[in-house]
Amino acid sequence: MDAPVLETEVRVMFFDTDAGKLVHNLAYLRFIETNRSLLAEKLGWDLGGMVDGGECPVVIRTEIDYRRPARLWDRLVIKGWLEKYERSRFWCTFEIRRAGQEDVLVRARQMLAVVTLPEMKVVRLPASWDQKYGHLRGTAGAIER
Amino acid sequence: MDAPVLETEVRVMFFDTDAGKLVHNLAYLRFIETNRSLLAEKLGWDLGGMVDGGECPVVIRTEIDYRRPARLWDRLVIKGWLEKYERSRFWCTFEIRRAGQEDVLVRARQMLAVVTLPEMKVVRLPASWDQKYGHLRGTAGAIER
Amino acid sequence: MDAPVLETEVRVMFFDTDAGKLVHNLAYLRFIETNRSLLAEKLGWDLGGMVDGGECPVVIRTEIDYRRPARLWDRLVIKGWLEKYERSRFWCTFEIRRAGQEDVLVRARQMLAVVTLPEMKVVRLPASWDQKYGHLRGTAGAIER
Amino acid sequence: MDAPVLETEVRVMFFDTDAGKLVHNLAYLRFIETNRSLLAEKLGWDLGGMVDGGECPVVIRTEIDYRRPARLWDRLVIKGWLEKYERSRFWCTFEIRRAGQEDVLVRARQMLAVVTLPEMKVVRLPASWDQKYGHLRGTAGAIER
Repeated sequence: MDAPVLETEVRVMFFDTDAGKLVHNLAYLRFIETNRSLLAEKLGWDLGGMVDGGECPVVIRTEIDYRRPARLWDRLVIKGWLEKYERSRFWCTFEIRRAGQEDVLVRARQMLAVVTLPEMKVVRLPASWDQKYGHLRGTAGAIER
Repeated sequence: MDAPVLETEVRVMFFDTDAGKLVHNLAYLRFIETNRSLLAEKLGWDLGGMVDGGECPVVIRTEIDYRRPARLWDRLVIKGWLEKYERSRFWCTFEIRRAGQEDVLVRARQMLAVVTLPEMKVVRLPASWDQKYGHLRGTAGAIER
Repeated sequence: MDAPVLETEVRVMFFDTDAGKLVHNLAYLRFIETNRSLLAEKLGWDLGGMVDGGECPVVIRTEIDYRRPARLWDRLVIKGWLEKYERSRFWCTFEIRRAGQEDVLVRARQMLAVVTLPEMKVVRLPASWDQKYGHLRGTAGAIER
Repeated sequence: MDAPVLETEVRVMFFDTDAGKLVHNLAYLRFIETNRSLLAEKLGWDLGGMVDGGECPVVIRTEIDYRRPARLWDRLVIKGWLEKYERSRFWCTFEIRRAGQEDVLVRARQMLAVVTLPEMKVVRLPASWDQKYGHLRGTAGAIER
């Protein structure tokens, strides 16, 4: 069984923080986008070619819960995985922790659709997903909070 | 009855777009933060002083639905309002449209708690809200999609 | 004589600051880009159409001096103007002050070339500039510091 | 002889690009800030503690030349090094290339001063630099273009 899971790391920089001395809420979504793009590559998309007539997963919904703050210079680990997929869209879940710690600082889910660029026409997910990730076929429920 | 509603405008710049030639998903959240900060000022917070021992509303959850894309140089109107409040947290809703058009491009909701900085201790919402916004006291339901 | 000068205003938001409690050095360049894009529109470029085969001014050099810091919630005024132009490139200068104050917080200059997108071929500046801005024809010297 | 040089790598993400389909000019400065912060750590600053009474290098001037564009999904290498230092400020130089290629896409220099936060009082550079980096003592000239 394929494991569509990916971990990325980031060191918190000044530009990730704000005058409250904590990581700004937008910065976590940047960390998540990096993880999600690499996860998308692992799931089969050629990200370099996607802007010239290729297909591209785009975010159509984000849910994000900010539980505990991260600070300047923290080492963060972002874990992202394919949670569920339907005919033409899929959900990914992301958790952010400090390296070596269990507490989840931020938990997020994103619903994505695959579109052609620049027409933005929605296409079906690859047929091969049923072989590889068939156990994940279904509808995503509400986020547990 | 007080009307805790605010509209802001923004012109889409290059730094708001990405190689898909559309506005990047993070940029909308920047537009919303500007609206929310000015809304918070209208609701009574002194944002300039809040980082030095003052109280500050912080985002603890965001839900955002990307319905239709905006493009470079578009004139966007962001409408934000106080949707519901409880004892120590409140929800704001935001809608983004092109100026002069009805279609909602992006709809978002954010749950905020008021904390002291830098201790991050949650405090109760001002008692005066029951006089001014009592009709909004209650628990926010799920976002309509 | 045409006056290729433009003033824009911005209120400093949390996402413009960092954990040093001051405006982050990148945020000023965002403020400047907004000013420069509106200045480019005033100088004759159709920014909305420029990404589809049109011509587009692109930054090829930036010099920026950070003299005094701005803070959360400050009202800043960005003043930008055409300083000099040559055959196929031009310099703009920008100054950032607090609204109603004389002290320059940030001073910057940018050299721009006009290119076709997406080929990035450099084109000549419009012939009409010699009529309108002929007194600015020449080579820009070093920034005064 | 100490070698105050550091290389960092980054993969270009959607949020680094703009509607011109190239990397946005601000994104390179983010890449450079990550490199510079890690270089500052190597030069002896404790970046995690610097926002609470510690000393912190701050950028007081940036010069950046955009020579060739980078694109979505490129692997970039940022090389940064200590170029010169005076009594209370120093210059770093940065070059950005595609991984495995010689062409310099972006070249930048930044002048930094070390200040106490949040008072922003300038302090002298560590005396140990004369032992370690004495060959770099001097005044930086103009950037070669």
